[in-house]
Amino acid sequence: MDNKYMAKALELAKKGIGNTSPNPLVGAVIVKDHKIIGEGYHQVYGGPHAEVNAFRNAKEAVEGATMYVTLEPCSHYGKTPPCANAIVEKKIARVVIGMKDPNPLVAGNGIRILEENGIEVVCGVLEEECKKINEIFIKYITTKTPFVIMKTAMTLDGKIAAYTGDSKWITGEDSRKYVHEIRNNLTGIMVGIGTVLKDNPMLTTRIDGGKNPIRIIVDSKCRIPLDAKVLDIDDNSRCIISTTDNADSEKIEQLKDKGAIVITTPAKNGRVDLSYLMKQLGEMKIDSILLEGGSELNYSALEEGIVDKVLCFIAPKIVGGDNAKTPVGGQGKALVNDAIKVSNITINTFNDDVLIEGYIQKEV
Amino acid sequence: MDNKYMAKALELAKKGIGNTSPNPLVGAVIVKDHKIIGEGYHQVYGGPHAEVNAFRNAKEAVEGATMYVTLEPCSHYGKTPPCANAIVEKKIARVVIGMKDPNPLVAGNGIRILEENGIEVVCGVLEEECKKINEIFIKYITTKTPFVIMKTAMTLDGKIAAYTGDSKWITGEDSRKYVHEIRNNLTGIMVGIGTVLKDNPMLTTRIDGGKNPIRIIVDSKCRIPLDAKVLDIDDNSRCIISTTDNADSEKIEQLKDKGAIVITTPAKNGRVDLSYLMKQLGEMKIDSILLEGGSELNYSALEEGIVDKVLCFIAPKIVGGDNAKTPVGGQGKALVNDAIKVSNITINTFNDDVLIEGYIQKEV
Repeated sequence: MDNKYMAKALELAKKGIGNTSPNPLVGAVIVKDHKIIGEGYHQVYGGPHAEVNAFRNAKEAVEGATMYVTLEPCSHYGKTPPCANAIVEKKIARVVIGMKDPNPLVAGNGIRILEENGIEVVCGVLEEECKKINEIFIKYITTKTPFVIMKTAMTLDGKIAAYTGDSKWITGEDSRKYVHEIRNNLTGIMVGIGTVLKDNPMLTTRIDGGKNPIRIIVDSKCRIPLDAKVLDIDDNSRCIISTTDNADSEKIEQLKDKGAIVITTPAKNGRVDLSYLMKQLGEMKIDSILLEGGSELNYSALEEGIVDKVLCFIAPKIVGGDNAKTPVGGQGKALVNDAIKVSNITINTFNDDVLIEGYIQKEV
Repeated sequence: MDNKYMAKALELAKKGIGNTSPNPLVGAVIVKDHKIIGEGYHQVYGGPHAEVNAFRNAKEAVEGATMYVTLEPCSHYGKTPPCANAIVEKKIARVVIGMKDPNPLVAGNGIRILEENGIEVVCGVLEEECKKINEIFIKYITTKTPFVIMKTAMTLDGKIAAYTGDSKWITGEDSRKYVHEIRNNLTGIMVGIGTVLKDNPMLTTRIDGGKNPIRIIVDSKCRIPLDAKVLDIDDNSRCIISTTDNADSEKIEQLKDKGAIVITTPAKNGRVDLSYLMKQLGEMKIDSILLEGGSELNYSALEEGIVDKVLCFIAPKIVGGDNAKTPVGGQGKALVNDAIKVSNITINTFNDDVLIEGYIQKEV
């Protein structure tokens, strides 16, 4: 029974996708006499929390009811007063929680307030699912750096382009449309200067009413042409150029004049220090990044350990070519045994394209 | 109702997998008064056909019954007398057929005999499924060349080995076990000399009581070392070396002394002419080949148009490396638009490995 109502709360939580960043997705359900009497979710960043919305929408008195909530109720005064206190005031009898607050500094405080006030608390119902919908929030709140999703698209023989560089199109329309949906839901999108020079992409979200992610260009030597499409900047289409001390300072000024934000990192092997960059982006409240790199940037990102998740599209075609590029280049591992492991695999299809999703297994 | 009994006949047909080559898999069911009264399948090459076995196993008189058979009953005297005549003699009233005999020279003759004798015939029930179980037979009987399945195994970033050449192991145990099952069911297995020189494989079936496919080594210059494991030859472990006019004739004699069959083809760009080779292998009654090539042989095989089906394993690991090999090398296509299409995709998993199967779309 607890699972059933938590599943409902999860479903509500997902309605907030794309609008709560960098705060979590949360859903709440109030149940009395085996009947749902109130529902709510965290709709928008800064808006009322799921618990408060559930109280507001309750169709009858909530005293003595059970509340199901996907995330531990908050215990601190932020943009809204603490939900744990509200639950106590409303005389809820029992609270079923999906997962603890991932922030190690506050985790358990909400539960403690509830229990100290005589409320029965159960924690960990559908925990995996609750963690999954907030994977971005969990990474960001615990590390202050963005959750990075590396998206690749290759043929059945491992190529991201023909040997000539031609890459239009590896995947089909449905796959590309799905990528635009992801862009719409993440805060940033990152590519290397090679992609800008080769394809001159806009990196916007081609969805009606869609949100454009902040474009982040990794460009160690500031080679980006001033007429690059990613430098068409306005309030809904921002651009960050990440470069190193090696870049020409005059060029940096020109980029700033065009409205770009320039982040200079120390050079690491002559390149942008990606770990340093992630810290800077985290401070700018960028909680999530879609990495659509070429093989070099992807390799650097994996080697630096900044990638959390991979989305690997595979198209049912064979292009061949010893010199055609693959999703991850660089030097590579010397032994297959030392390969980076990807776990918790899920498989989807978009027409004939296959999407393999998984999580980079971090070494402990 | 017809579908239900045909599904049963298909199930029976599959019991012959691995034992009927180069003849087809066939299953037959006899139904009277909504009850199955007889079942049979083609058990072994040269043995009685499915229809005959169904008559033999019938539990009551078959007169007036319906026979379901996955393939059009034969009309010629081969190793056994024609089944169409037997069906007429047994006074079957109705025959439901999965697919016509694919051999264009005889297709329809079995049906004609039945109809001329007043038997009601329905053809094309579960036709796709019936064609699928006999994909090898159909190719072989219509072209006299083997059905070639290209098997590849790559990482999530498209590599068949690390840049060092290390490739142990890309896929997990369950995937490799499945490949041994396939080896057990196909007549031949083909690799390039590069694989022999690098890995010195046995290419046998590691299954208790398994059948070893005939090993076919593509070796344009006859570079194979005389102590290569594939040259351990006996009646259950045969070996064919395919070479060109450029090979040393003394070496060829040495290989023959070791029991190998040597097939010399004209040199095509200095290499074995794979189309010519396929014709030779077809004449030797090799109806099916598992191609476990490296990237060069795979590319040549695809360019020559000898590949019918691909089995592409993808392991959830990332090894990186600009210089690491991919499943298909060579020059490659210049445009993604000209890539070879793979259709009728199916997806399976073996633990965390993903297997994408499909058919090479032949240009018409």
